[in-house]
Amino acid sequence: MDENRLRGIFTPNLVPLDARGEIAEPELRRYVDWLIDRGVHGLYPNGSTGEFTRFTADERKWIVEIIADQCRGRVPILAGAAEANVRETLSACEHYADLGVRAVAIVAPFYYKLSPRSVYAYFKEIGDHTPVDVTLYNIPMFASPIDVPTVQRLSDECERIVAIKDSSGDLPHMIRMIQAVGPNRPDFAFLTGWDAALMPMLLIGCDGGTNASSGVVPELMRKLYDLTLSLKLDEARRLQYDLVRLFDTMIYSAEFPEGFRAAVELRGFRMGTGRQPLSAEQQVDLATLSRTLQCLLAEHGFTDEPVGGCPAGEGEDVSPLEVNEIVLNVVSELKRRGLM
Amino acid sequence: MDENRLRGIFTPNLVPLDARGEIAEPELRRYVDWLIDRGVHGLYPNGSTGEFTRFTADERKWIVEIIADQCRGRVPILAGAAEANVRETLSACEHYADLGVRAVAIVAPFYYKLSPRSVYAYFKEIGDHTPVDVTLYNIPMFASPIDVPTVQRLSDECERIVAIKDSSGDLPHMIRMIQAVGPNRPDFAFLTGWDAALMPMLLIGCDGGTNASSGVVPELMRKLYDLTLSLKLDEARRLQYDLVRLFDTMIYSAEFPEGFRAAVELRGFRMGTGRQPLSAEQQVDLATLSRTLQCLLAEHGFTDEPVGGCPAGEGEDVSPLEVNEIVLNVVSELKRRGLM
Amino acid sequence: MDENRLRGIFTPNLVPLDARGEIAEPELRRYVDWLIDRGVHGLYPNGSTGEFTRFTADERKWIVEIIADQCRGRVPILAGAAEANVRETLSACEHYADLGVRAVAIVAPFYYKLSPRSVYAYFKEIGDHTPVDVTLYNIPMFASPIDVPTVQRLSDECERIVAIKDSSGDLPHMIRMIQAVGPNRPDFAFLTGWDAALMPMLLIGCDGGTNASSGVVPELMRKLYDLTLSLKLDEARRLQYDLVRLFDTMIYSAEFPEGFRAAVELRGFRMGTGRQPLSAEQQVDLATLSRTLQCLLAEHGFTDEPVGGCPAGEGEDVSPLEVNEIVLNVVSELKRRGLM
Amino acid sequence: MDENRLRGIFTPNLVPLDARGEIAEPELRRYVDWLIDRGVHGLYPNGSTGEFTRFTADERKWIVEIIADQCRGRVPILAGAAEANVRETLSACEHYADLGVRAVAIVAPFYYKLSPRSVYAYFKEIGDHTPVDVTLYNIPMFASPIDVPTVQRLSDECERIVAIKDSSGDLPHMIRMIQAVGPNRPDFAFLTGWDAALMPMLLIGCDGGTNASSGVVPELMRKLYDLTLSLKLDEARRLQYDLVRLFDTMIYSAEFPEGFRAAVELRGFRMGTGRQPLSAEQQVDLATLSRTLQCLLAEHGFTDEPVGGCPAGEGEDVSPLEVNEIVLNVVSELKRRGLM
Repeated sequence: MDENRLRGIFTPNLVPLDARGEIAEPELRRYVDWLIDRGVHGLYPNGSTGEFTRFTADERKWIVEIIADQCRGRVPILAGAAEANVRETLSACEHYADLGVRAVAIVAPFYYKLSPRSVYAYFKEIGDHTPVDVTLYNIPMFASPIDVPTVQRLSDECERIVAIKDSSGDLPHMIRMIQAVGPNRPDFAFLTGWDAALMPMLLIGCDGGTNASSGVVPELMRKLYDLTLSLKLDEARRLQYDLVRLFDTMIYSAEFPEGFRAAVELRGFRMGTGRQPLSAEQQVDLATLSRTLQCLLAEHGFTDEPVGGCPAGEGEDVSPLEVNEIVLNVVSELKRRGLM
Repeated sequence: MDENRLRGIFTPNLVPLDARGEIAEPELRRYVDWLIDRGVHGLYPNGSTGEFTRFTADERKWIVEIIADQCRGRVPILAGAAEANVRETLSACEHYADLGVRAVAIVAPFYYKLSPRSVYAYFKEIGDHTPVDVTLYNIPMFASPIDVPTVQRLSDECERIVAIKDSSGDLPHMIRMIQAVGPNRPDFAFLTGWDAALMPMLLIGCDGGTNASSGVVPELMRKLYDLTLSLKLDEARRLQYDLVRLFDTMIYSAEFPEGFRAAVELRGFRMGTGRQPLSAEQQVDLATLSRTLQCLLAEHGFTDEPVGGCPAGEGEDVSPLEVNEIVLNVVSELKRRGLM
Repeated sequence: MDENRLRGIFTPNLVPLDARGEIAEPELRRYVDWLIDRGVHGLYPNGSTGEFTRFTADERKWIVEIIADQCRGRVPILAGAAEANVRETLSACEHYADLGVRAVAIVAPFYYKLSPRSVYAYFKEIGDHTPVDVTLYNIPMFASPIDVPTVQRLSDECERIVAIKDSSGDLPHMIRMIQAVGPNRPDFAFLTGWDAALMPMLLIGCDGGTNASSGVVPELMRKLYDLTLSLKLDEARRLQYDLVRLFDTMIYSAEFPEGFRAAVELRGFRMGTGRQPLSAEQQVDLATLSRTLQCLLAEHGFTDEPVGGCPAGEGEDVSPLEVNEIVLNVVSELKRRGLM
Repeated sequence: MDENRLRGIFTPNLVPLDARGEIAEPELRRYVDWLIDRGVHGLYPNGSTGEFTRFTADERKWIVEIIADQCRGRVPILAGAAEANVRETLSACEHYADLGVRAVAIVAPFYYKLSPRSVYAYFKEIGDHTPVDVTLYNIPMFASPIDVPTVQRLSDECERIVAIKDSSGDLPHMIRMIQAVGPNRPDFAFLTGWDAALMPMLLIGCDGGTNASSGVVPELMRKLYDLTLSLKLDEARRLQYDLVRLFDTMIYSAEFPEGFRAAVELRGFRMGTGRQPLSAEQQVDLATLSRTLQCLLAEHGFTDEPVGGCPAGEGEDVSPLEVNEIVLNVVSELKRRGLM
């Protein structure tokens, strides 16, 4: 049973768009191949990184169809299946089951902030009727929180609920979940969605991660995973530190997930025009951010430095300090706003 | 210009469902007539009270179609038009314009918590291309906040943006908006979505409210509006106090908007099974709540007392104290959770 | 009994310091006279505006001694008496009782965020042993919240607890308190500490306010109180709007209460060097703020315009728009941070 | 320089009181010896666990005097030195320097929520004039946050600021601080105050912890530290898991730090009556909690089981499940309240 457990790095993939904002199928297919070639263990369409709320129900289905078709079983697929209500969500589950996905991932209801009892009732209804394995998706920053007693109860009652993806980044919370669920469900998987804590999360018992950064630097996230599991901790720590810097820059310097879109563009994909409009000022900022990201990616040899060079870029040890300071300030700001 | 300003009580109507959870068209039509007969100034389908997120895009359109058809111009309609992205939202605006609605109401993007610049860019794109007047909908509890400088900028740049519905319940915030927007836009309307503050909101300059309570006790909300505008302040204050008690009971004793659904049921409508599943425990609680609500409504003569009578129910002055204390505790709890 | 109820505008006075940061007794005495001459109904030393936490226990006592001596019964005194623990607080209550204060005001325990049960136990102990009337002080932004059931229970059990000062600015919350406490305790007073909502708070049933703005423009706060009570609502509303602008500028443009200190300085008092150090950058900002405040105060004839004139200052109707926009942005920022 | 860096487990000691609530000096001396004998690397009086705000300024000095006298240089002392303002704080620093403490720890200003610039100005003033090394104390749950750019700037400018104790429990935040400060200040120490994350914090680069749990189970905290540093990760993980359960029970089942006081009592110390009053209901709950704690401590052989035995207590693997569930519910509740 344990062998079947979800494990490793699942990439919550972005969706390339064309100039009119439509799904760019050929580029999406090329991106899927590129990710698999670089070692990610699975794909995760229709996650928060994949901007599932900005697509229509039909588009969400089409995205999974493209990915399943392109993937052809090379790696497992975790398909985001949250729709407007339980019935629509179950209908999506059925469709994705037919496409052969390994499991679906379902975010807790959002907009309304539901109580634990309602979150339980929602997932219980789904867990009892789903034709495919379900991963709970806890992202309290955006959706109703799925608390530990709820995870415990659902894992006890619903065999089809087989994993949780937790994006809170809260280590003790993860420990509590593993303590509460693990003894009764050795097959249950714990995945972290918080890239900046992947190494310590794996060390305290997580099975893997669904990390937006793995859509940008799949090689590095896979390497961090491997280094940590083989207990090469000094190397792993250095890489985790580097990834915090990259992750912070991508996530806090622009409206999510624009920073990730800009970075994937630097890796050679045409991401097109995003669906959330940007003000003129934001577009300028995004161009600046892209230059910064190019420097960070160049440090690892993934791109050339931008024309004009990087702020302090004589090598890996010298970080673009000014940029870093700005990012740190933004991070502090967001923490104060309660958005982190 | 001023004459055309949105004004009065707009009811964010619930949607009656049948036993299978489908839209109960005949009951919805009967409910619309009932509301109009009791004096509400307008209707507001697809609001938060109307659970817009729990319907599909097609269902949202159908709801407005039913209401427009049944209303036949007797009162203006403010149609909630938020969809997955700007293009879909504009398409809904066009459809609702064709149906003859007075304006649409568009909530700020939710799930992702957007910055003021992104909220501006979103509404600017809509404001520049909408074929129908737009009401901004600020509900920071559920969606990205629309801050005062953003409202000011949008009102300056987009003639088609003609009002804001603000559900924050924050008096000074409303004053700041009126100060910032009013001088340049005398036609701009300010509506409060926070029933518990309707009287003071009107007294400091609001034009009306979009209040869930008006779907339950349209007579009282209309009366509170009229009393306040005619400066019968002692009577208005007493009524506002009563409505705080009723509103608190409906909003804090069950998952929103279940308390309102239970109360409308007591007014004689079959509301059916809600789309958010309830645990067995919650269903029991809801039955208890319904009894409490029946007592509160009986105080105003809107229903009979439940079989067995009301806790301390010899008249208007004697409140069901135990119930009140429970509600106050829940309110305190929610405030501590940051949900109020 | 009712006649003895606390009522009107109590000024939470700042404490003038000298150049070395010591209490400037003569200036404090002069300030007390000035406030009384301009019509405030009472004084409130050792409040948040009075920076009670930045003085030692001995200094706090000395401040009340000076004010009681200077006041000589002309207006009632509400003395802030919170100390490190219940025993020290009761000892301060005894001392202030001997000085003849009308009542003490005691903030809920801070630093640790206490549960309602602990807040109850703390005030119950004080209420049972105090030799002087006690005002509860609820300021959830800074201290453990005192929720409605706790206020109700304390008011029922402790005769010596005679009022609440609530600085949350939350109208429905105030209504709930009045509903819960009023029937059993007609002598209990409700005071608002949120200047930006004074007019609507009075209209829904408050007895007065303890407002920092009344230490800057005592004439206007008194006038707003009188206009509202005599139901001259159009005039009152205009004045309330003006005061929101002034209050926002003072409270959000600098670390509290530096903006108020700068404004009182403009009214002719030497406030000295504050006890919380300011960075060089903050000192420059404070000079700019002072200029803005001078313009706002000049609109009401309380000062001359600064050398060089005011941004757009041809009269009362033309507001310094740029300044206003900055303030609005700061306000939005702070709201997002959860600090408002 | 590096050799002198703060390192290891510093115990933020509780203060035993007598029946009248006065400091119980002999018991405090006995407790200090007991802690040192069980391997803690240092002592930390006047921390949050030590309830510094509930003592007078004189009492705080006396506490450090007792501890310094009893300690006699066996382990280094980190003395909490925050007082009402900068001058008083510096005066305390001088006194503690004379007593021979290794360093002082100073919490950011509390009650008022200060901006980063003010927090900087406050610590800069202290850092420039302190006669003894200073540890910044960041506990955003209770006091103004010290953000990463502020830590970086202070560490660059003030040689006397040599460490930060961070109680946020946020792993990526710790990584950011180490990245920002470490390169320029190899002597700077990073201590975590969040017991539930000690193991992963050490693994990503922390130098130690100031953990309330080490005042209850000094043997286990020291063992966890040693196991982690020697990379015995499986054993360390199991111990960390156990400690999360104990820590959660102590911190979330009663008002902080009552759960810790009850546990230290079970280890054989008379802790006396706390200074924050408890309601009758809370006292009953505390007795129940004490029984639960006794079971948890008995699992490790630190006490006998309570009379009547433990809920499911046949050994280490069988946890008192019902208790655990209650604690998990409380934890979830507090998280929703934003108190975690």
